[in-house]
Amino acid sequence: MNEFELIRHYFESTSLRRTDVPLGIGDDCALLAPKAGYQIAVTTDTMVEGVHFDKRLSPSDIGYKLMAVNLSDLASMGAEPSWISLALTLPKADEIWLAEFSRGLAEMAKRFGVSLIGGDTTRGPLTLTVTAQGQVPSGQAMRRDGAQIGDLIFVSGTLGDAALALRKKVIAPLSAHARKDVEERLFRPQPRVELGASIRQLASACIDISDGLAVDLAHILKRSKVGAVLDTEKLPISSHACHLLGEQGAVRQALAGGDDYELCFTVPPEHAEAVIQAAARAQTPITCIGKISQTKGLSLHYQGQAVDWHPQGYLHFQ
Amino acid sequence: MNEFELIRHYFESTSLRRTDVPLGIGDDCALLAPKAGYQIAVTTDTMVEGVHFDKRLSPSDIGYKLMAVNLSDLASMGAEPSWISLALTLPKADEIWLAEFSRGLAEMAKRFGVSLIGGDTTRGPLTLTVTAQGQVPSGQAMRRDGAQIGDLIFVSGTLGDAALALRKKVIAPLSAHARKDVEERLFRPQPRVELGASIRQLASACIDISDGLAVDLAHILKRSKVGAVLDTEKLPISSHACHLLGEQGAVRQALAGGDDYELCFTVPPEHAEAVIQAAARAQTPITCIGKISQTKGLSLHYQGQAVDWHPQGYLHFQ
Repeated sequence: MNEFELIRHYFESTSLRRTDVPLGIGDDCALLAPKAGYQIAVTTDTMVEGVHFDKRLSPSDIGYKLMAVNLSDLASMGAEPSWISLALTLPKADEIWLAEFSRGLAEMAKRFGVSLIGGDTTRGPLTLTVTAQGQVPSGQAMRRDGAQIGDLIFVSGTLGDAALALRKKVIAPLSAHARKDVEERLFRPQPRVELGASIRQLASACIDISDGLAVDLAHILKRSKVGAVLDTEKLPISSHACHLLGEQGAVRQALAGGDDYELCFTVPPEHAEAVIQAAARAQTPITCIGKISQTKGLSLHYQGQAVDWHPQGYLHFQ
Repeated sequence: MNEFELIRHYFESTSLRRTDVPLGIGDDCALLAPKAGYQIAVTTDTMVEGVHFDKRLSPSDIGYKLMAVNLSDLASMGAEPSWISLALTLPKADEIWLAEFSRGLAEMAKRFGVSLIGGDTTRGPLTLTVTAQGQVPSGQAMRRDGAQIGDLIFVSGTLGDAALALRKKVIAPLSAHARKDVEERLFRPQPRVELGASIRQLASACIDISDGLAVDLAHILKRSKVGAVLDTEKLPISSHACHLLGEQGAVRQALAGGDDYELCFTVPPEHAEAVIQAAARAQTPITCIGKISQTKGLSLHYQGQAVDWHPQGYLHFQ
């Protein structure tokens, strides 16, 4: 058994077989039969050891997170995850590593009904690339360029805990249970797939937060040629972050911290009530944090006062 | 400009824009609008520095070859190349390298009408992954599992020159011009896209030859549950190989040598004439080299006598 056959073996024991894959792993190409009337959303994400993760992340967490970051991109378009291709470069054949990695990958694949359709395994420094594809009814995908002046800005979940997990000295005082809570946000983010699909006909623009709220919201603003005012006291912060950093510290971290993989989306006011109901049906907490404005750029308010809390990563945007 | 914007910049200056890409690079996902009545063929290939190529291969050749190996997989299914996603891990931002690499990639993309729809650039050891997608009318894709007893076996082009290019001492006696001819086969293989599309309704099975004729034909035999007899004196070898290795040496290299990216396909006898005409229209030389047999495994004949010239890589197949 070569490495890919090994992955396939672990995968097939837990994963679904989709009927829209007339030919899967084992030929020169896979064949897909997409749904009529749908467009295909495609995204690619790479993780490199020493850059995106270190040896503390278990192989299972690597597999899980690799899927999660890709599925999060599909979620932000409102697409239904369908198929993934995996390119795995490994220093050596390591059955235990591959088994654990496949377990993490397959766990997510099963949960979201995704088939592994093919890929490539090569020898070299540990590098992992997934190309994930989803389906979305034609014309219904959420893009970055649809935000309109007056739209409300929402985010899902809480922000900043993934960044908090990287600050080991800061989280040291937490109980083991609470520390695990925080670290799970970094190691095993939840792609908001159900939320994305349920709001795609209501939201005007959407992005997933991988580089921090300020940076990622700026992508929407730039592409939509609008600005925004955030009421930073409304930012959803976790009780752990508030406890450890104080409210203002936690808010600043929520603006700057990456890796949360929550969705940030804009909603015309007349759809606000429907979005809140859709999110409730998707069992995903959402919070309204501000409004799209005519004045370009991102203005931050705290309790009604303008504040200058722009994270560094944001400076390149005008 | 980040790296991906740089690649996109070079790419857009030479490449086509396809109308079936409603949303390209620059959002969380690209959006594709596949043709109704078509299936999508998907393949992924990775190249790692020090494994698949060394520093002698120019960045432009790397870009070219990365496309060629992926397009060759699409060709072997008879699919029409449509879209590629690129995952590029680079040790450092190097504008000259990126410009040259993009030139090689874009040259092939333009030639085959392929759009770059997205991808990811990351920091790390030089590793390149392309996921290429093509379209093929539903039910018309050539697979590995369709060969029938009595089918004729064809290959395109000539075999063994890519392997010959790796043997520097052997090719040293060639003139500079002839040596370049041989090295081009290794550095800049020609994916047989037109041939694949033109024979897809005539051939019963097809594969591209990346690991050597014997190994790759064995994949067809295994999946189709048949055997084959090759008349090895019919194998298309180049005049360079014949000159340097003698006829038998060149034949053995043609059986074992990888990286040629020619197509090997099987054809019911009643379609043989039509296949020869289709190949002529595709301006691709093809040669009939043997026949599918009931007796499992691959039998090699040389001028009517059974010979034991199985290359090592073939031993794992029964």
